[in-house]
Amino acid sequence: MSRLSTGRLYGVGTGPGDPELLTLKAVRAIGEADVLAYFAKAGRSGNGRAIVEGLLKPGMVELPLYYPVTVEIDKEHDDYKTQITAFYDASAAAVAEHLAAGRTVAVLSEGDPMFYGSYMHLHVRLSDRFPTEVIPGITAMSGCWSLSGLPIVQGDDVLSVLPGTMGEGEMSRRLADTQAAVIMKVGRNLPKIRRALSASGRLVEAIYVERGTMPESRAVRLSEKLDDSAPYFSLVLVPGWSGRS
Amino acid sequence: MSRLSTGRLYGVGTGPGDPELLTLKAVRAIGEADVLAYFAKAGRSGNGRAIVEGLLKPGMVELPLYYPVTVEIDKEHDDYKTQITAFYDASAAAVAEHLAAGRTVAVLSEGDPMFYGSYMHLHVRLSDRFPTEVIPGITAMSGCWSLSGLPIVQGDDVLSVLPGTMGEGEMSRRLADTQAAVIMKVGRNLPKIRRALSASGRLVEAIYVERGTMPESRAVRLSEKLDDSAPYFSLVLVPGWSGRS
Repeated sequence: MSRLSTGRLYGVGTGPGDPELLTLKAVRAIGEADVLAYFAKAGRSGNGRAIVEGLLKPGMVELPLYYPVTVEIDKEHDDYKTQITAFYDASAAAVAEHLAAGRTVAVLSEGDPMFYGSYMHLHVRLSDRFPTEVIPGITAMSGCWSLSGLPIVQGDDVLSVLPGTMGEGEMSRRLADTQAAVIMKVGRNLPKIRRALSASGRLVEAIYVERGTMPESRAVRLSEKLDDSAPYFSLVLVPGWSGRS
Repeated sequence: MSRLSTGRLYGVGTGPGDPELLTLKAVRAIGEADVLAYFAKAGRSGNGRAIVEGLLKPGMVELPLYYPVTVEIDKEHDDYKTQITAFYDASAAAVAEHLAAGRTVAVLSEGDPMFYGSYMHLHVRLSDRFPTEVIPGITAMSGCWSLSGLPIVQGDDVLSVLPGTMGEGEMSRRLADTQAAVIMKVGRNLPKIRRALSASGRLVEAIYVERGTMPESRAVRLSEKLDDSAPYFSLVLVPGWSGRS
């Protein structure tokens, strides 16, 4: 089989949820693809596929890649690592089979593929064997600060992107040492995030955003949000540009 | 004049350079606009306008907003601040005149409007007076890591976005204290950036990207770049995801 006969691998950023936030390049790549692949929880089709629903063509092959049921296992546990690595290996093999047969595969990635995206696990396994192109997408954080009309950084500001899973002391230290911050993976970490913001003197500035760019999106000052319930994919934004003018 | 008769203000992210990285929403907003506004250096039309060139309609009013000649003045100097503030005030007034007359205005912003974009200066002056929508764009850093096929952050990584203008000691400290980093505004700061990367043990990982998503783009390991010449808008990426698999 000649190298020229293989299909092309696209890692396609779908943006944060609004189908209008797809790029022209993402739309073209999906239009060129023979196979549409996406990671999803078992029994679901995932947000990425919902975003591109209107672009699906008759006869397009769909390749859902269902995560194994491992959420109950601690991520640092060896069993989790073994299972998830085997899953990514098998997923890459399934995509490679299509590519080797000459079919172009678009792998959807919510937000931006190289920014915390699952697509990366396929990229590192396949990009040296097949012609590959990564198409950037609007990140969830950008969808959130745009929807909120919130300038996040200007001039010489430092921006720190922090996972909500981080320890409280470290989070507080980092919040006190940056002009702007985005805290990802909020969910059940919200009470801790609130304490870290308070300890670092940043609580008053913090904005909580739920489902940015989804129809049911909302943004409120965290200090005015009275409960601590939050979906996993909500965000907290701490804007910089303090001397704004 | 009734509120309903005013035009709509769009802050439109144009992405990093490739016109195919415009979002569908950006294309629609430019299609709806009566007036296309953009910041530019005197005598130039700017990268934002070049990106949307193919979308311009006959009869569209163009409103270039030319920066005053202040680059020779130190940014911390009072004269600079006075001149630049007066310039943003006058620019907002020029946009407001169109909006008040019922004309919809699209203000272009390279990359993402709320992420170090000049559009913000108009947003804070106008968004409480006119119906306003911010349309996010692909950031230059995302264009660069996508083009390089470089996974930047995964899992619980911290990402630090640092201006190249920062002092060497502070830069070194921050580089040693983050999984991933993006260093903006490289230009003549490159020798200092190289020293800070070296002192923090991160030089070997660093990727230098020039003109990401432009046709003449190139990405090389910074340790293999022998000279210190760099355009202002080049970037240095330090990828996270050290245990990639």
